[in-house]
Amino acid sequence: MKSDTFRWICESTDGAARAGRLQTAHGPVETPTFMPVGTAGTVKAMTMDAVRSTGAGIVLGNTYHLMLRPGAERVRALGGLHRFMDWPGPILTDSGGFQVMSLGALRKLDQDGVTFQSHIDGSKHRLDPERSTVIQHALDATITMCLDECPALPAAPEAIAASMRMSMRWAARSREAFVARPGYGQFGIVQGGTEPELRAESVKALTDIGFEGYAVGGLAVGEGQALMFSTLDVTTPLMPVDAPRYLMGVGTPDDLLGAVERGIDMFDCVMPTRAGRTARAYTERGTLNLRNARFAEDARPLSPHCDCLACSRHSRAYLHHLFRTNEILAPMLLTWHNLAYYQRLMRGIRMAIVDGTLSAHGAHLRAEWAMEDWSEDEMPQPVIPPVP
Amino acid sequence: MKSDTFRWICESTDGAARAGRLQTAHGPVETPTFMPVGTAGTVKAMTMDAVRSTGAGIVLGNTYHLMLRPGAERVRALGGLHRFMDWPGPILTDSGGFQVMSLGALRKLDQDGVTFQSHIDGSKHRLDPERSTVIQHALDATITMCLDECPALPAAPEAIAASMRMSMRWAARSREAFVARPGYGQFGIVQGGTEPELRAESVKALTDIGFEGYAVGGLAVGEGQALMFSTLDVTTPLMPVDAPRYLMGVGTPDDLLGAVERGIDMFDCVMPTRAGRTARAYTERGTLNLRNARFAEDARPLSPHCDCLACSRHSRAYLHHLFRTNEILAPMLLTWHNLAYYQRLMRGIRMAIVDGTLSAHGAHLRAEWAMEDWSEDEMPQPVIPPVP
Repeated sequence: MKSDTFRWICESTDGAARAGRLQTAHGPVETPTFMPVGTAGTVKAMTMDAVRSTGAGIVLGNTYHLMLRPGAERVRALGGLHRFMDWPGPILTDSGGFQVMSLGALRKLDQDGVTFQSHIDGSKHRLDPERSTVIQHALDATITMCLDECPALPAAPEAIAASMRMSMRWAARSREAFVARPGYGQFGIVQGGTEPELRAESVKALTDIGFEGYAVGGLAVGEGQALMFSTLDVTTPLMPVDAPRYLMGVGTPDDLLGAVERGIDMFDCVMPTRAGRTARAYTERGTLNLRNARFAEDARPLSPHCDCLACSRHSRAYLHHLFRTNEILAPMLLTWHNLAYYQRLMRGIRMAIVDGTLSAHGAHLRAEWAMEDWSEDEMPQPVIPPVP
Repeated sequence: MKSDTFRWICESTDGAARAGRLQTAHGPVETPTFMPVGTAGTVKAMTMDAVRSTGAGIVLGNTYHLMLRPGAERVRALGGLHRFMDWPGPILTDSGGFQVMSLGALRKLDQDGVTFQSHIDGSKHRLDPERSTVIQHALDATITMCLDECPALPAAPEAIAASMRMSMRWAARSREAFVARPGYGQFGIVQGGTEPELRAESVKALTDIGFEGYAVGGLAVGEGQALMFSTLDVTTPLMPVDAPRYLMGVGTPDDLLGAVERGIDMFDCVMPTRAGRTARAYTERGTLNLRNARFAEDARPLSPHCDCLACSRHSRAYLHHLFRTNEILAPMLLTWHNLAYYQRLMRGIRMAIVDGTLSAHGAHLRAEWAMEDWSEDEMPQPVIPPVP
């Protein structure tokens, strides 16, 4: 059901974890949710029908890539990103900041914004809070993100403070530039590195401005899971209880579980899609490297719990063969599988929150991840009819 | 309906053209038919669901590639190629000969067979009529092809004659090695270059042996369409009327039409799949190069007559963008489109044969191919709702 009011409704809590529903102009999303990354207007190696079949409710687009190719005005002329990429559901676009900041020598930051050269053709571009917002509007993003700076960690507290305060000034400018439309929203991004008082100051600055949702940025940039979790521990309790919370660029299945336990509702990460292109399969029993010779004659599916195309129709041996022969079908099938796993993981976590059993469910997930691949006792080789 | 008897039933003729039905252990195939090429156990960039959705009835597998990776015995242990690649329908495998003969310095031909080195790891292998047949049985090919030599054209008539006669001796050995199973068949391959008397001698040799079907080999190897057609003109009239006829490795849409008009029932070619990876779209109006900048803002589908995923959901502008950004979805969508076009072409030709209107239908197809892309009068830009 499409909604004229962009809002997040809490349905259940279990400890700090929340199960809810995001209402948007492009339909609802059950949270906690994982957003597949559709960098340049495509979730790599996937048709949108396949993305839908995994149960994904919202996808992410990258402003940096789309502003360069095919260009935001072109996407607008073609009816927006939903139509362009065949995803009528909600789309969140990042601000472009994270990718631009990663350009190193190709970008020059000032207090007003950032000037950079395209990694493709060296052409010069400018991104500032207003321009980023205008671009995201042209793309028709359901959720627009504020432009921010995301310093690499570790960094000196003064540098992190200065960067965070600049991001907060940019957040105010982004909010000014945001055009309210029924069912659309804009998220502010909490910065402040791993410094609790800076995170608190950032949350205060953003809630004073007021957004439809709040993201936690500046994590998963090298600080390690323990510091990420401890930062969430001191940050999410300060964030509004009636708005969605999005942890940007995270993460492994274990990261997702731990962050949901700390009150996060939304995630995006290239891990499942990138792993799908590099022969790494996510399963309930951890990851499998499909290039490994031990799969060459393994007639079993990747996982006994998965209903993706790879698992319902093909053996590990087939996937191993496809990766060894560099067939395009290899990343197609494995990306599908990995996204199906991530969505199944999130559905299971959501159900546990609703049931009030997240603690037991989390313990079960972690115990399984720590185990080796299923033994042949647990998952026998299928009976294969002989070739006539 | 699967059939215990491998046979081809003629349903209609129109001139030399035939509409029929091939009955096999793995289900029926309406002919004329185009077989997508599934070289290494996958039709490149396609799921088998997508291949099925185009209307394909039978696919081809390459013995050379499969014997090297993953190996014929491994495919057999995994239940055969149908199960391995998720194609329960009929599969035709080539003999491996064509690819091995193309290895140049890496292969050494003798009267008994051919010894070659793998293009992948340099390992030594041997292929002879018996071994090729055994491999195709291990793969569980519905249709097994005889091992033959296919000389490049032009070549001296004596060389072509000697080669053809060796291929005929190999055909007899292949037939000896073939294990009859209900609903399975083996095809002999007519050789003889563009020499009518050699083609006649070859047809006679093969029909004396007796096969379930007959292929025309040694064409589409550089002789040009006119010589190919004139060779068919003197060859197909000599071939059995009650068996399927397969023109190997052909071809363009125009080649297919001309060959059907000359009595051919089956085709395979990498063109539609390879073109799908190199931005070339087949349409009723000829081919389009999607890298061309003129498609950057073209909101129309590739073809107004196509119901493939690319045409039903996406614009030319989107496909142009995907190819410019080297996204995996680009070959996925365009291969799908091209195979859908080839299958639609064959269905249209078949219907025209049944209706007795092939001459008019062929003239119409050729007139359209010769025209430019649809004008905006003929296919208007879609009305695009504005971005809010």
